[in-house]
Order: sequence, then C-alpha cells, then structure tokens
Amino acid sequence: MAQGRILVYGGKGALGNAVVSFFKAKSYWVGSIDLAVNEQADANVLVKPDSTLPDQEAEVTTRVSELLGANKLDAIFCVAGGWAGGNAKKIVEPADAMWKQSVWPSIITASLGSKYLKDGGLITLPGAQPAINGTPGMIGYGLAKAAVHQLTKSLAGENSGLPSSATVLATLPITLDTPMNRKWMSSADFSTWTSLDFVSELFYKWLNKEELPPSGSLVQLITKDNKTELVLA
Amino acid sequence: MAQGRILVYGGKGALGNAVVSFFKAKSYWVGSIDLAVNEQADANVLVKPDSTLPDQEAEVTTRVSELLGANKLDAIFCVAGGWAGGNAKKIVEPADAMWKQSVWPSIITASLGSKYLKDGGLITLPGAQPAINGTPGMIGYGLAKAAVHQLTKSLAGENSGLPSSATVLATLPITLDTPMNRKWMSSADFSTWTSLDFVSELFYKWLNKEELPPSGSLVQLITKDNKTELVLA
Repeated sequence: MAQGRILVYGGKGALGNAVVSFFKAKSYWVGSIDLAVNEQADANVLVKPDSTLPDQEAEVTTRVSELLGANKLDAIFCVAGGWAGGNAKKIVEPADAMWKQSVWPSIITASLGSKYLKDGGLITLPGAQPAINGTPGMIGYGLAKAAVHQLTKSLAGENSGLPSSATVLATLPITLDTPMNRKWMSSADFSTWTSLDFVSELFYKWLNKEELPPSGSLVQLITKDNKTELVLA
Repeated sequence: MAQGRILVYGGKGALGNAVVSFFKAKSYWVGSIDLAVNEQADANVLVKPDSTLPDQEAEVTTRVSELLGANKLDAIFCVAGGWAGGNAKKIVEPADAMWKQSVWPSIITASLGSKYLKDGGLITLPGAQPAINGTPGMIGYGLAKAAVHQLTKSLAGENSGLPSSATVLATLPITLDTPMNRKWMSSADFSTWTSLDFVSELFYKWLNKEELPPSGSLVQLITKDNKTELVLA
C-alpha cells in the first residue's frame, strides 16, 4: 500500500533522480516525467522534446490520466530545468532553451495540478535565487526563472484553478551540488552548494505539513558551511 | 535631415501606431517592426508569425542591418504585446501566445540593441503593472510580463551586452486607452486608463533625457481622473 502518489517532473535529472529515490524509499507511488526513463519510478511519462507546448501538455496529460485512473496526486515536484549563460549579444538560443526547459514543465505542472492534485496537495516549481534581481550574464536563464517565480504567486492566488487549499512553492537555490556542477565548476567552494538530499527531505517535510511556508512563497535555499537556511524572498 | 533614428517594435498595434505618428511629427526616421505594414513609417520590417524565435531574430536582424547601413539607433521602443486571460485550467495556449507576443519581441529588441543602439541610447520594454504580483485569472499573461520585467533589470546590469550608458526601462500600464479595450470593456471607467499620447510623449521626454528614471526601472503608469502618475516599482 503506497503512502501516497507523487509526480516528479524532471525525474531523470540529478535533483529529480534524488527526489524519486527518496520518495520510493518512503513507500510512495512515484511517477517520473522526463525525456528519458527513470527505472526506479513506478511509472514513466516520456516527453518529446520537439513537440510544441500544447502538444507536450496534451500528451503528458493523456498519459498521466491513464496512470492515475480515479486516483489523485498528493504532490507534483517540478524540478525540470537547466542553465545557460549569455548576455544580450547571445540571448536568443539561451532564452528559447530555458523557456522550454524550465517554464514549459512549470506550465504543464500547473495544468496537471488543476486536474489531478488532491485538495490540500502540494506543488513545487523550479526557481532560482539570482533571478530575483537582474542577471546580465545569463539573461535567458534569469527571465525564464522570473516567469516561474511569478507563476508561483499566481497559482497561490484566489481562483487560480488549483484545488482548494493547495500549496504552491518555488525553491530558489543558488547552486545545487550535482555531478555536472562539480565537473564544470571544479574549483568552486562546494560548501556553499545545496545538497540534493536536503531538497528531497525538504519536499518530504512540506508534504507532511512540517514548517510549510505560506502558499506562493519563493523559498531561497542559502547554503554556507554545508548548512542550508530557508529564506523567504 | 532626420532628428534621429528609432525603431518601434509592434509599430502597427494601437500604441505602436501612436508612437510612430508622434515621432514622425517630430521629424524622426522611424522604422516599424510588426506583422503588417505601417504606412506612416519610413521603413517596415515584417515578422513572420510562424517562424521560430531564432529564425525571427535572424530575419529581423538582417532587415534592420540593411535599413540602417552604418547608422545607429537613438532608441528602440518595444510596445508589442497582447492580452489573454485564463487560470491554471486554461494556461497552455495563453502562456504560449503571450510568450510569443510579448517576450519574443523583447528578446529580439535586446539583441538589436546590442548591435545597433547608440552609446547612451534608450530601450523601452512592454511590462504590465498587475504582473508585479500574482495574476491568478490571467496566468500566461502575468508570467510573460514578469519575464519582461526581469529582462529589463538584466539589461540595465553591468556587461549586459548593450552599449555603454544605454538606458533600459519597462513601462507598466494597468490599462491602455485603445479602441479594442473600449470595445471589449465598454462599461469600464475610462478615466483610469492611460492615453496613448501620454505614452508617446513620455518616450519622447525620456529620449531627450527629461526626467529619465534610472536604467532598469519598472515604471508603473497609474492613471486617475485622466491624469497619469509615474511610480517606480
């Protein structure tokens, strides 16, 4: 008997994989939505990267509907994303890619939430701490994350289309401690990076209504000396 | 002899048309970028709505380059946009449309600015006052405008790729007094709507460094009793 049902959007990425593992260990039914299969998940929803946003949403919705039957979701954790640098001289491809990688999954998560989330369920969206301010060296990244932040506030508002008393939060890390980040920023101070286990545990606490911030909050994850503090933006 | 050279992105829309007329009357060379031709403009750059963002940017850039030759621009006024309602139950098509109508032109404007704006030139981008907070009844609209707001801050930052001492501002109206808005909201209080002439004159003042807000400002246009106040967000 599953503890509950969750979806992890981006379940094959570094953070998504950690979240899938964590919730499997806690006996949840876990569905992964991503470009590739996560073998640990109970079910996988594969996204076609070349589809338009409306087509992606329709395909994901059909598949999720089949998987759930009459069941509803306790949470959708959207951790899809990526990173790209570039100022105004190199803005087009990064903005296009970041929109598709961070904002499309967030939009589809919102739509899934309006159909399949339980009353009182939880949605998390993938924000970024630097995008609270201007990000002149990574313009496409910043504007996509700012869209996710505002979406979080909208979904927490009245008549947003989500079920009653749902909670929507964005997590705003600075840098996550992933193998790829260690590879590309090998001389950085890793003690200021946020561990994937910390984020997984945080999601679990929130799902159990422990120290749950008000819906609509942008939750900055500020890590120093390997300790992460939560600071509402 | 032209007073200077400006581009109006969205020059065939209601506001764009007003801005083109205003600057033509002030003897500027005016280029219009839009889906359709503005006959008043000195030159037109036509955008193909079905192109991808990278293709649109490449096509617009080629045409602008041909038009300008060795000349540079005093300003690019991006006033492209549109409106769509819809909460999480109807999020996909509005978000997709608003991204293409508001954010793509803003991104292409930034790219054009990095290539063709004069030192000390001016860029304005199309924000929206409601998007400072959550917009649960118009989610796609709000998140696209929030992206434009953050882009404004990024472009004002150091090494953003724009020429030195450029100024970038977003205008954040609540409702513009356009024929379409009068048609669709015919029982509204028009005395709280911002006139297109006010915006055109504001752009002209800013271009002449009159009461120019700091670069990166989000300038709310708050209209009461037919008078508009500027309030920095």
